[in-house]
Amino acid sequence: MPKPTIVALAGGVGAARFLEGLVRVWPQNRLTVIGNVGDDIEIHGLHISPDLDIVAYTLGGMVDDQKGWGFRDDTFHTQHMLAQYGCQTWFNLGDRDLATHIYRTEQLRKGKRLSQVTRELTAQLGLKTKLLPATDNQLRTYIVSGHRRMHFQEYMVLRRTEPNVSRVLFLGVRSAKPAPGIVQALRNASGVIICPSNPVVSIGAILAVPRIRATLRKIHGKIVAISPIVGGKTIKGPADKLMKAVGVEATALGVANLYSDLLDTLVIDEIDRSLAPQIQELGVKVLVTDTIMKNLNDKMRLARVVLRELGS
Amino acid sequence: MPKPTIVALAGGVGAARFLEGLVRVWPQNRLTVIGNVGDDIEIHGLHISPDLDIVAYTLGGMVDDQKGWGFRDDTFHTQHMLAQYGCQTWFNLGDRDLATHIYRTEQLRKGKRLSQVTRELTAQLGLKTKLLPATDNQLRTYIVSGHRRMHFQEYMVLRRTEPNVSRVLFLGVRSAKPAPGIVQALRNASGVIICPSNPVVSIGAILAVPRIRATLRKIHGKIVAISPIVGGKTIKGPADKLMKAVGVEATALGVANLYSDLLDTLVIDEIDRSLAPQIQELGVKVLVTDTIMKNLNDKMRLARVVLRELGS
Repeated sequence: MPKPTIVALAGGVGAARFLEGLVRVWPQNRLTVIGNVGDDIEIHGLHISPDLDIVAYTLGGMVDDQKGWGFRDDTFHTQHMLAQYGCQTWFNLGDRDLATHIYRTEQLRKGKRLSQVTRELTAQLGLKTKLLPATDNQLRTYIVSGHRRMHFQEYMVLRRTEPNVSRVLFLGVRSAKPAPGIVQALRNASGVIICPSNPVVSIGAILAVPRIRATLRKIHGKIVAISPIVGGKTIKGPADKLMKAVGVEATALGVANLYSDLLDTLVIDEIDRSLAPQIQELGVKVLVTDTIMKNLNDKMRLARVVLRELGS
Repeated sequence: MPKPTIVALAGGVGAARFLEGLVRVWPQNRLTVIGNVGDDIEIHGLHISPDLDIVAYTLGGMVDDQKGWGFRDDTFHTQHMLAQYGCQTWFNLGDRDLATHIYRTEQLRKGKRLSQVTRELTAQLGLKTKLLPATDNQLRTYIVSGHRRMHFQEYMVLRRTEPNVSRVLFLGVRSAKPAPGIVQALRNASGVIICPSNPVVSIGAILAVPRIRATLRKIHGKIVAISPIVGGKTIKGPADKLMKAVGVEATALGVANLYSDLLDTLVIDEIDRSLAPQIQELGVKVLVTDTIMKNLNDKMRLARVVLRELGS
């Protein structure tokens, strides 16, 4: 009998922090992470995959813990020089980090798929966990603000989430297919974890790939999500604003609403215990625990709670 | 009446060292440098123009004087990481230097011409001298060794000039046109200087552009070259080997032979004084002086000798 495997759906920093704990209490080589590519962007002609890199660097143990992205102790000499050449440098790219983008861009231009390049990069970073981009197709998250529309990174990094958001678009999603291995991994998984990431843009862009959502809907009794909204706020990022923008209340209940067609259990924080009955009414089981991850112990404890719920 | 202008044909380190002296005794904004692009190469998917950059960094005052290329005090973090990703890193690219290649590559991909991108880069580096690539077309110097042929950089850097050379090829040269402004600059110049660079591959790749050589042939009495061969040896690089490979003796006389159809005066070193009569037989005037440039004073002195010969 094959050994049980877990599949995790992941955005950026929030997911990576949870996964850091998970890989300490669950075998790394029996975990597959499906990463968000909606935030991918071309900068200086280089293909950047911010969320895939955050997960890879975190699991590889070389992430900058303070920032949550990039390499620890990285320098920014190339970027300073690019600024001198008049390039916009609002999206920070460290020197070591640039190697990832240069490598990825070259391999993609040679005709490789993003999933293949990601496999090569994560292998070289020493990851035992499989990291799969949600899709190899071009899928880009755009924010509509009034009459303007902008790439998610422009909204998030350049404009610091200040524009009013009227809509979120996943450009290219209709023709996007799950990257090779995703459907199979989901079907064979003994459990699926939806990490505490932005449910609208990060997890949203993964679930927007038609066949991924359809596959998850057919899986019963083993999908657990951790709410990234605690006490009506996000730990990091604009999830609360974006939830309101898509007409969902910015609470754990709102998260449950976004996932209710496929979710079995939602892990919520003690502070949100009063929302449990309403969430249960959606047909979603509720598990109440401390969800704030201040240190590695918190991360491992939360991972154990989730694994227990999955019967693993 | 327009002020007199000088045009210099330049390869890499040897030329840059001479030009460093020239711009201290001649107004920088009345100098146009035509740079070699035969050595250009794509590495990690980036367009590298080694000779243009050596000239630009040297005239900009930020070159690494020890190496003769790259930025002073540059770091190599990106490259170390690229090596970890399994990339070949025999061609050294510093972090600051990479900004130049990233910028150039992005702009070329957007459809700009190399001459335009070079103008932008040199402006940002603070150059007052105009630096023009010999051509905006694809022209690549290849070395034929037995049944193999390899890019010049592979021969030069990776294989350390060890392969036997049977032939030098300038791929794409037949359809190469001079970059905009070159023919005009040459026609209007009060003097043309052929820098002490490799006459076969560096200056050779410039003169191989049909209209450049043809234009120079029509200019009389104001073309001066400095021999890069002193006492039968090159100061730096494989000029001597390559001259023999193309059937020319590796001496100042050999240099005179390569340029005899267009050259007025060849500046040779004291040590080569005995070659003067044979060079004169080719119809080339000889000027004997110290040509070894050990310091800035040597460079300026040599520049003054050349300018005097040009009547400037």
